Amino acid sequence: MKVLSLFFFLATIIATCQGAPPHHNPGSDCLSWRLSVETNNMREWPVVPQACVSYVGHYMLGYQYHKDVQAVADLAYHFAKTVPLPKDLRTNLWILDIADTVLSNLPYYAQPDIAFGGTPYNSTKFAIWEQKGISPAVPGILDLYKKLQSLGFKIVFISGRSESLRAVTIKNLKNLGFTTWENLILKQASDAGTSSQIYKEKKRNELLANGFYRIVGNVGDQWSDLVGEHVGYRTFKVPNPMYYIS
Amino acid sequence: MKVLSLFFFLATIIATCQGAPPHHNPGSDCLSWRLSVETNNMREWPVVPQACVSYVGHYMLGYQYHKDVQAVADLAYHFAKTVPLPKDLRTNLWILDIADTVLSNLPYYAQPDIAFGGTPYNSTKFAIWEQKGISPAVPGILDLYKKLQSLGFKIVFISGRSESLRAVTIKNLKNLGFTTWENLILKQASDAGTSSQIYKEKKRNELLANGFYRIVGNVGDQWSDLVGEHVGYRTFKVPNPMYYIS
Repeated sequence: MKVLSLFFFLATIIATCQGAPPHHNPGSDCLSWRLSVETNNMREWPVVPQACVSYVGHYMLGYQYHKDVQAVADLAYHFAKTVPLPKDLRTNLWILDIADTVLSNLPYYAQPDIAFGGTPYNSTKFAIWEQKGISPAVPGILDLYKKLQSLGFKIVFISGRSESLRAVTIKNLKNLGFTTWENLILKQASDAGTSSQIYKEKKRNELLANGFYRIVGNVGDQWSDLVGEHVGYRTFKVPNPMYYIS
Repeated sequence: MKVLSLFFFLATIIATCQGAPPHHNPGSDCLSWRLSVETNNMREWPVVPQACVSYVGHYMLGYQYHKDVQAVADLAYHFAKTVPLPKDLRTNLWILDIADTVLSNLPYYAQPDIAFGGTPYNSTKFAIWEQKGISPAVPGILDLYKKLQSLGFKIVFISGRSESLRAVTIKNLKNLGFTTWENLILKQASDAGTSSQIYKEKKRNELLANGFYRIVGNVGDQWSDLVGEHVGYRTFKVPNPMYYIS
């Protein structure tokens, strides 16, 4: 440990005092790109950069994505177990987004012509995929869902999916083991034309308007799920380097 | 490309439909840990986990930290260049945190007994380091600072450092090339006992109270710099896996 520390110490002196330029590594730009996405530093990005398609593919299909989502689930559960909640009559809610938070679109995005988000969003093709209702679960989230319920939280799904997909969404959820919820909020015709962030904020405000609910936690793969008014005591960002929704 | 895509597609079918467990890789837990930190999923963590000290050291001293900070600077500059601003008499501000956003504490954190944040915060030792006023600049940020000024933004530093460090901070900043600013806000005796997030929000509100200013951008290494009221049109999170300030 001491030798290692000394090495680090000396290396720092050299690296910081002489302003040594970093060595070049071609893959590292994609690491920076993904960090920019996950920290919400980069917004409104239309497609995965061509140079990072293979990187994103390996990430999404490899162990790291699984581990990263599991870490989100573990942190959310730890918070849910330990958060002090007011003793009143309000129901404690946990908000879950659906697409790539609960139901995975990875089999769609891994198709050759979709290239993990490396090609522009194709609403026609995506609608056909959604209609199939065959999404697998995002790893670790079904377990979190069950644990949250066992702690007494009620689940509210707030999804950007259209109301017309209610039956297929319910079937997909139930097939995977997501069997009960307090509410499943889907986009109505009257919500058309609003950004996801504004739409989800409006739905949270509607939930809270009757005074019966408290939003405690909120899990989503997009920052637009997790910012704005009444996002909950804590938010949890599920990784998604394949697409951006504002 | 086609063969690669087909590989990915088949790998997805196998990985998602059979629920194959991810392979084990000892270092990957530290990648997940760092992502949890950078996305604000993990909060109030006291020290870097022992198993990740070496990982954090390599990250901070290697090319990836440099690249990641440079990506933040590039994104902030791109936003600054392109953001539409109201044509009025208000001054357009850019907020910068100081510690590990502008002035690097890496030479302190790399010391053997500090272990990149692997040992508990030692306020006595840290105060001695701060008094020296010999921080190097965080890579890429001096260049961003200059570019923001050339675009017409005025810089306001909001720092958790104590007012008693004003002279040493100014000397350190000027030595590195940070020569001018609209305001350098340091913690007053009356700010003692408040969290960094509340303190910084209060200072932003005070800045805006006279109606002369607009906060456009905001760069910090802690989420407590970047959340709350009036954070600016856009925020930019500089990576920092060495410590957490609430």
